[in-house]
Parts: sequence; structure tokens; C-alpha cells
Amino acid sequence: MNVVRSIVSSGGGRAKLINVFPWVTSPLIVGAPMRVMSGPHLALAVSKAGGLGFIGPGAKPEDTGTDLKTVRELLKSATGTSFSGWSQNGEKLPVGVGFQLWNGDLDSAAKAVKEHQPCAAWLFAPRRGQEELDDWTARLRAVSPGIHIWIQVGTLKESVEAANSAHRPDVLVIQGAEAGGHGRATDGMGIMALFPEVADQVRDSGMLLIAAGGIADGRGIAAALALGANGVAMGTRFLASTEARISKGYQEEVVRATDGAQSTTKTMLYNHLRGTVGWPQQYSPRGIVNKSWQDHQAGVPFEELKKLHDEAAKSGDEGWGPDGRLATYAGAAIGLVHSVEDADIIVKRSQNEAVAIIKNLQNDL
Amino acid sequence: MNVVRSIVSSGGGRAKLINVFPWVTSPLIVGAPMRVMSGPHLALAVSKAGGLGFIGPGAKPEDTGTDLKTVRELLKSATGTSFSGWSQNGEKLPVGVGFQLWNGDLDSAAKAVKEHQPCAAWLFAPRRGQEELDDWTARLRAVSPGIHIWIQVGTLKESVEAANSAHRPDVLVIQGAEAGGHGRATDGMGIMALFPEVADQVRDSGMLLIAAGGIADGRGIAAALALGANGVAMGTRFLASTEARISKGYQEEVVRATDGAQSTTKTMLYNHLRGTVGWPQQYSPRGIVNKSWQDHQAGVPFEELKKLHDEAAKSGDEGWGPDGRLATYAGAAIGLVHSVEDADIIVKRSQNEAVAIIKNLQNDL
Repeated sequence: MNVVRSIVSSGGGRAKLINVFPWVTSPLIVGAPMRVMSGPHLALAVSKAGGLGFIGPGAKPEDTGTDLKTVRELLKSATGTSFSGWSQNGEKLPVGVGFQLWNGDLDSAAKAVKEHQPCAAWLFAPRRGQEELDDWTARLRAVSPGIHIWIQVGTLKESVEAANSAHRPDVLVIQGAEAGGHGRATDGMGIMALFPEVADQVRDSGMLLIAAGGIADGRGIAAALALGANGVAMGTRFLASTEARISKGYQEEVVRATDGAQSTTKTMLYNHLRGTVGWPQQYSPRGIVNKSWQDHQAGVPFEELKKLHDEAAKSGDEGWGPDGRLATYAGAAIGLVHSVEDADIIVKRSQNEAVAIIKNLQNDL
Repeated sequence: MNVVRSIVSSGGGRAKLINVFPWVTSPLIVGAPMRVMSGPHLALAVSKAGGLGFIGPGAKPEDTGTDLKTVRELLKSATGTSFSGWSQNGEKLPVGVGFQLWNGDLDSAAKAVKEHQPCAAWLFAPRRGQEELDDWTARLRAVSPGIHIWIQVGTLKESVEAANSAHRPDVLVIQGAEAGGHGRATDGMGIMALFPEVADQVRDSGMLLIAAGGIADGRGIAAALALGANGVAMGTRFLASTEARISKGYQEEVVRATDGAQSTTKTMLYNHLRGTVGWPQQYSPRGIVNKSWQDHQAGVPFEELKKLHDEAAKSGDEGWGPDGRLATYAGAAIGLVHSVEDADIIVKRSQNEAVAIIKNLQNDL
């Protein structure tokens, strides 16, 4: 197993991503498509900073089209940036879009992609595995030739299936168990062990590899690159961005919480309290624990928790926090997030940190 | 939070480790003190290769003294290496020794340390938390002035307690949930998120930081250094070393197994089948699953599993493997371990890989 050779070849991969997305700067930071919270303002801000922002799935399938339209409008006023004039020249939009397949609507997705031409589509959580990913990939490529297809995986099996598919994606997003929001329920693993094993198994596929989960600053970025990633996706860090489409109470809790191992957990409880049902059983979300979880652990019946949850939901921003009861999906790296900042600052500082770390490592050798 | 500054200061830390252990080469690879399996031959081979090998706890407390005596004898014949003449000049032994506190014996440990003077002691799994770690630290430092005290932790809380102790250790080994053997049962976390948060919280303590868990080649080493580690500890990788004190069937299973997320799990089942009881409840071991686990999942009663286990134990090397029933403690990075090699080869190749990766990252910037 020639590990070094694989790293050299992934260096070539990084160059390829820069060819596909000419505005991105190295190391590549991707804004993950967090449902609702990654809206058009956040996605475009990440791209403007030299990253690649993804819009998350909306509350309704039609919201994706609305959000992409907003990006198009925002671009009209993007004078003085690398995107000035972008919307006029027929190129694809400099943001991607995420789809949650199990409850998504392919017709609606294809319509939005065809009309607005996002540069990439990130597919996640199929009910029927690779077959369903293939359906989406084929359809989106048909309506938008050249669209970059990204597939998010959390297991070796999914990775190999994607690599072997006739509708192989361009990019595999390998998500470690540290990640916030929905990931693998019981068969996930920390990115330190998961990423290299997946990379070895899909090496010959030509797919580019993005690492996700537990990455919130330049240290995680440099570490992911060392593992062989072509770039990283960050979610939780962007929850604490000015541009995130997020309630203030939720965002403040992301900033407040520390000790990600202790204060986050994977559970379906919050989904069920919110009335979200139907996620395929292989997925479960990570979130910050609060009174709902503590009471659940103490044996309080679900009906009572639901009543208290729904009351909390009416209390606005008070509903979040250690004494709150609302779902606060976030990753295990919350302890590295200390303030709300502009996405631009987050991207550029994280890149600079990663670059400085790599230079220091080189000097230390 | 100046992440870059912390990296620069940890660069200084690496220099300090080289001062303490003058034979080590950069990046520092530590051979973890795996119970019984990390014997004197493995520990010394790791150190001879430029790493730092630890002897693991033995089956009985007295075994530690016996193993250290063996190191001393092996050193007499270490002519032509950096250790030739070592045992004659009164320096500490170039290997460390690990102690499992909850069932350890401090009198016996102090006697072995006083008599044989290992360069470092790695303390793990106290029943009474930091207070017990303090007792051991004070006693070992008393009988062996200058001994380097390492404490293995898996949570932020333990890390901060160690940093604030009057008997602060010299080194904190931060173990991610990917690790094999015993680690935190339910409050562990992947090293990607755990390490940076701990590092931020203990930054001013002066402790050096070693990353452990899920690291099995140069990629993991380079990634850990990027996170700010002063070095890495590897366990599972050395199970597949020529010098490991391990049954052939066990070792072959470590080489065979792939897909660490799927084929390993954390469970007390194998402890109980072996008759090992008494581990404090905050700990649980990761191991490769086999028939015992599958049958347990299928509802086979413990008494039946125990009977089948004990029969398997009589079958020698046949007792391990996918159709076996014996405990096969190993980490989630088993998918990166493909052959049994000399510890010397493992250390040097892993170091070379890490160096090449760092150089490539620098060139890619």
C-alpha cells in the first residue's frame, strides 16, 4: 500500500477541483448543505470567500428553486468581487445545492437545477441506496450537463458502491461520526480511521474526496489534507456565521456549548419531538443535549416531553440552551466554535491557519 | 483563539521530547502499552527504531518487573545500535511501562520502577480518578526521580483535571474513540474533534500531547501533528508486528479484518466471556466482532456463549477469526493493517510517509 503515492495523486485531485470551480482557493473549504440553515446568503458568502458554498434542502422541495433564484439575484449586485458579471455569462452558479433523497422530490429538484444551474449537487440519504443515487445523478446530469455530482457517505460499503456505479459521482464526501445533524446511526466511525480506509478502497475511481465531521478550524483542515482529502466540508462552524439562516437562540447555544463528546449525542428523540418521522433507520442526527434529553434519560414519557417541547417551541429563542427543549443539531466540534462571525472571516482565517500549520510542520521536520 | 500560535508552541514541545528521550526521531511514534501483547521485545524494537516503546501491564503485577529485566538483558546484546552500552551507564531504560490502575498494585509497580528505572510510566484507568493518578505519580516520581509520567485520557474533564493537578503529568495521551482495547465507554469521541478541544483547554499546562486512536500509518501521524500533537501512539498497528506477544490466530485476524467501523465494536461481552470483571464502568473495549458477538446479538444466553467461548479457547489459533469466539481487541484502523512486519519497518516507514505527506502538502500550497 503506497500511502505516499496516494497523497501525491490527491494533490493532482486538488488541482482538478480548482479547474472545476475556478474561484476556489486552496485549501478548499466547503460550506455543507445544512437543511434550511445553509441558505443562499451563507452559500454565496462561502463561495465569495474562495470556498464552495452549498444551499441545504429547504423545508419544502420548492424552496430549493426559490433559494437558487435568490443566489442569482444576489449575484447581480456582486460587483467588485470575483463574481461580478457572473449571472450574465451563462456559466453555472458558483454555489452547489444539497438534496435529501429519502423525502426529496426528483422532479422538483431537476426543475430547479435545470432552471438555475447550480455548479454542483450534493446527494444524501437515499432510501434505496446506490440505485436511488444513480437515478438522481442521471437525471441531474441530463438536465444540467457538467453539473458536479457529490455524494455523502459514512461507510466503506457506500463508498465502494459509489465508486463502482455506472453513475459514479465526481466527489465523495466522507463523513465521520463527529459530524452534526444526520449521519450514520450505528455504523459510523471517526474520520481519522474512516477516511484513509475509504481512500484506499476507492483510489482508482478518480473521485475526489472531501472530509467532513468534526472539522471547525485550520487544524482540522490541515489534518484532513494529511489524511488525503482534496478539501473539507464544515457545517457546525457555519451555524455560527452571520449569514446562517438560523434562530438566534439556536446559534447562541452553538457558541455557548463546549465539550462536544459530553454535550452532544446521536438520538432520534429530537426528530420525533419535532414530528419529523420517516428517516431511513441507518441515519441518526447528532445534536446538543438539553432538558428534553435529560428528561428522556430520566424516564419521562414521550407524550410529556412532546408537550413540554411544543410549549418551548412557542417561547422563541428561549427554547434553546441548556434549559431549553428544542432540537439543536450540531457536531462534536462545537467546543471549537466561540463566536458568530462572517462566513468570509471563517473561511479565510481557517485557510490561513491550515497553511501556517503545514508550513510549521515542514519547518519542524 | 490563536490556533497557529498553539502549533508553533507545540513545535517547541517536540524538541522537548527529543531532549527527554534522546534516541527518538521525528515524528515521534509511541508503541502503546497493550496489556501482555506489548512485551519487552516489541517495546525495545520500537525504541531502537527511533520511537518510544512501552511495555504493557502483564497478566500479574509481578510480570512488569520480569519484562523490564528482560529489556535490561536485551540491551546487553544491543551492540551496534544507538543503545549499545546503555545498560552500563546508569541511564534510565529506553522503554516506558504502562500501568492499569484499577486492578494494579502500586507497591509492586514502585518496586519494578525503582529496580529497573524505565524512562516513562503510562498510567491509565484509575478507579478513583485524578486522586488515584496523583498517588501513583507521586510514588513513582519518589522512587525514580526524573521518570516521565504519562496519563491516558479520553475526555475533556479528565484532561483538565490532570492539567490542574499538583502532580501534573509530563504527557497527556489523548485517546480518540477509534482506539482498540479499553477506552471511554460512552463519553469518548473521535480524535478529530476531541484532540483540538483538549489542546485548547490544557494549553498553558506545559504538558506534551500525544494523539492516540485510529492511527496506523503516516497519514494518521501527519494528521495528528496537524491537530497539534507532539507525537502519536499506535497500538493496533503493532499487534501485527513480529515482536508482539500475541497468539498467531489473533494476529492473523487483525491482518485479515477490514472495515473497522463495521467489523469492530465496543462491548463488555468479551471481557465477561474471559472472566474479566471489575473494570470501572466508564471504560469499555473495542474489538473485532465474531461469532460470540453475533450470537449475543441474536439473543443466545450468556451461559451458552460462555460454554462455546471456553471450548474455542481450547482450540488454539482456531479460536480467533470470523468464525471464532475469542476476544480480539483491536482498533477501528484495522482496515489499514495488511501484514505482519518488524516493528522497525513499521516505525520507519510510517515516519517516512508522514514526512513525505507534509512535504507534499507544503508543495501543494
